[in-house]
Amino acid sequence: MQEGRNDVSTLDEVLARLDANLEPALERLFSLLRIKSISTDPAYAADCRACAEWHARDLASIGFEATVRDTPGHPMVVAHRRGGQGSSALFYGHYDVQPVDPIELWDHDPFDPQIAVQPDGTRIIKARGASDDKGQIMAFVEACRAWQAVTGSLPIPLTLLLEGEEESGGVNLPPFLAQHAAELKADIGLICDTNMWDARTPAIQTMLRGLCGEEVFIHAADRDLHSGFYGAAAANPNRVLARILAELHDADGRVTLRGFYDGVPELPEALRRDWDTLGFDPKRFLGEVGLSVPAGERGRSVLEMVWSRPTAEINGMGGGYQGEGFKTVIPAVASAKVSFRLVFDQDPHKVRAAFREHVLARLPADCRAEFGEHGSGGAIRFPVDDPAFGKARQALTEEWGKPAVFIGGGGSIPVTAELKKALGMDVILAGFALEDDRIHSPNEKYNVTSFHKGMRSWARILDALSR
Amino acid sequence: MQEGRNDVSTLDEVLARLDANLEPALERLFSLLRIKSISTDPAYAADCRACAEWHARDLASIGFEATVRDTPGHPMVVAHRRGGQGSSALFYGHYDVQPVDPIELWDHDPFDPQIAVQPDGTRIIKARGASDDKGQIMAFVEACRAWQAVTGSLPIPLTLLLEGEEESGGVNLPPFLAQHAAELKADIGLICDTNMWDARTPAIQTMLRGLCGEEVFIHAADRDLHSGFYGAAAANPNRVLARILAELHDADGRVTLRGFYDGVPELPEALRRDWDTLGFDPKRFLGEVGLSVPAGERGRSVLEMVWSRPTAEINGMGGGYQGEGFKTVIPAVASAKVSFRLVFDQDPHKVRAAFREHVLARLPADCRAEFGEHGSGGAIRFPVDDPAFGKARQALTEEWGKPAVFIGGGGSIPVTAELKKALGMDVILAGFALEDDRIHSPNEKYNVTSFHKGMRSWARILDALSR
Repeated sequence: MQEGRNDVSTLDEVLARLDANLEPALERLFSLLRIKSISTDPAYAADCRACAEWHARDLASIGFEATVRDTPGHPMVVAHRRGGQGSSALFYGHYDVQPVDPIELWDHDPFDPQIAVQPDGTRIIKARGASDDKGQIMAFVEACRAWQAVTGSLPIPLTLLLEGEEESGGVNLPPFLAQHAAELKADIGLICDTNMWDARTPAIQTMLRGLCGEEVFIHAADRDLHSGFYGAAAANPNRVLARILAELHDADGRVTLRGFYDGVPELPEALRRDWDTLGFDPKRFLGEVGLSVPAGERGRSVLEMVWSRPTAEINGMGGGYQGEGFKTVIPAVASAKVSFRLVFDQDPHKVRAAFREHVLARLPADCRAEFGEHGSGGAIRFPVDDPAFGKARQALTEEWGKPAVFIGGGGSIPVTAELKKALGMDVILAGFALEDDRIHSPNEKYNVTSFHKGMRSWARILDALSR
Repeated sequence: MQEGRNDVSTLDEVLARLDANLEPALERLFSLLRIKSISTDPAYAADCRACAEWHARDLASIGFEATVRDTPGHPMVVAHRRGGQGSSALFYGHYDVQPVDPIELWDHDPFDPQIAVQPDGTRIIKARGASDDKGQIMAFVEACRAWQAVTGSLPIPLTLLLEGEEESGGVNLPPFLAQHAAELKADIGLICDTNMWDARTPAIQTMLRGLCGEEVFIHAADRDLHSGFYGAAAANPNRVLARILAELHDADGRVTLRGFYDGVPELPEALRRDWDTLGFDPKRFLGEVGLSVPAGERGRSVLEMVWSRPTAEINGMGGGYQGEGFKTVIPAVASAKVSFRLVFDQDPHKVRAAFREHVLARLPADCRAEFGEHGSGGAIRFPVDDPAFGKARQALTEEWGKPAVFIGGGGSIPVTAELKKALGMDVILAGFALEDDRIHSPNEKYNVTSFHKGMRSWARILDALSR
């Protein structure tokens, strides 16, 4: 289309407006940060609703049809802005924040946002929710505001969905998505709740590992026994469980479950090349938590281990007497919580079945196993060769002056899987938080640069997606 | 000596007196059982002292020089009766009792002793402490009372030591023994705090296993990690510990520690023959706690496993998240409590060193182990060919009309080791409690037969030891 040819200059105008209006944008963010929208604590329910209403008013003021939607928990904000050209997008963020305990470790009131300058000269915004997720949401909203101010519309049709329970389980999101699928569905999802690779390198997370969580209980005698009287003669669930857990890995660190590596290919060459450019430093990564040697599969890099290889971890185990001192007991039961991180096409149900088979094959006489299921979801990979991903990557690269990278990620961002499942949407995960933002901890911060260049990045991405 | 020839008739007189005076003996026991001498609860400190004073008065009334001796905790009762002939003996018992919680499970006031008749016609004494240990003490005291009444003296020089803290750690006993070693030392020890083999078969326990208790902590990262971010890359102490514990036993159930079986001979033929006569039923032993298959060393009988073979048991283990639900954590530390039951000449210090070596040999990079010591004592075997043991055995056989057996025992009776250590004494462990006495539990009982024939047994043993 002809008018597309002039959009570069329109984008420049939008970016200039963002630069000129950083102070009022910070003021808006500050007024949002003053709202104590702690979702886990029922004492703050009214604050959560006030926060949702604040967003709805703000979005309405820049042309969105914005509504606050009740749920069995805290409300959702849904805002639509039709018009524009190109693919439609659904932007997701969450307006609730983590609790502030331990409050005595904060060096200021967590709900009295402040600008501070760090020793290295970096300007930061200090407040609970500055990075997770209010600053990240407002970076996006400010980009929309500037487009609206400069052009009277947005580059693409847009829906915003702001959740109020991300930090407290988010149980009401899946049914809400299912119920409003037709209203919320768009060509592409945008999620802002992620980090950059580092302070200078923008990133889009394109792989998320899946999860299969299992709990196992090993039962033997019908009561706790005295190990002096029954030792050796009676089956000890601790010993049985230790063997089951020890044999989850072989000597090379590979998981021994039958068929565990089915559907796990080698990393695609293009992604490997991308990751090679990251300058990831495994020594630093491990060194930050007091470690030095990768403990996973022999012959794999640390980045592979945490991003693209499946794992088995014993997250909890326990049996018998664990208090002070000593008690010579043979417990009636011992238990463990084990989680498997899944990649590519691994089937969580097959993994669960293989784990149970592994346990049952190692049960001696007189022992029985009981299992509990704790979540299962396959891995997610977004199609990095899809044009939308290429456009977003290019936009980020232009803003930051450094190639944006497609990265993996070890954890899971539940909403991503939910969007994929309920709405069938791919999602561009692009956020501007940094590893040192202390989210969930005292003295949370968000760099002013993250906020400012974040706005500019979203202004560019919206533009790019319209082409 | 000539007068010995007539002692059989004297013994008959003593036994007849015991038969004739069962009712007053029960009354004395009941007044003792009414004293709430719960040693663990400071609220009952005055009751404990009252109990000690009751014993001292009672023993003084039958010719003992009896004193209540203060300790940093509850007092000891020490009573001497010189004179008599033959070897001197030190009798040990404890006047304190277990707490009564959960009180709602008792079918009567635990400190209001009663005689009841069981469905099978067995008469029982119901009260806290009836079996453990007041009934057992009084069986011995009544034997002394009858000897005193009939002959004006006792068959052998005797010292009684009654402790008030057996149920609450007994920390003041070893220093008390050491301090009063010269006063307490005798040719042989007598301890009443044990069971018969079954309701018809008297037993002397001649072997007690030793114990080596170890606690191990496996440390890795300097904090708990998120298994989504660090999984596989970071060492997981749960996994390291599981392997360490799993490899404590080989496929045949033998303990793998270096040199663990040094000093562990096969069971002496005489003892094996004795045990073969017991008619021990492993199916019943295991069946009572819901088990059916011996879990110990391949090729060993259950009685060997619990009496004469050394064991390694994981009494407690724990690491990571063990609460409700699921938390994908890699813990900074995991720990286990492991105990080794020792037999014959195993050296607890060598076993401890071998365990630590086993752990350290399995520590991967980035992990460190920390150890805690929880008790160590070698096994005890008394010389069954010593004449005193033969005399006691013969006396029991005569009373019960069934051969008394020398048995082993899985647990340890700490005072036995203390007497051996502090006073260099062998101990005849002969008591009349039964497996179903519910000691430490609600509705504790002691059979009237245990009490009555227990008195008669002690009267015979005192006589036998004087010869």
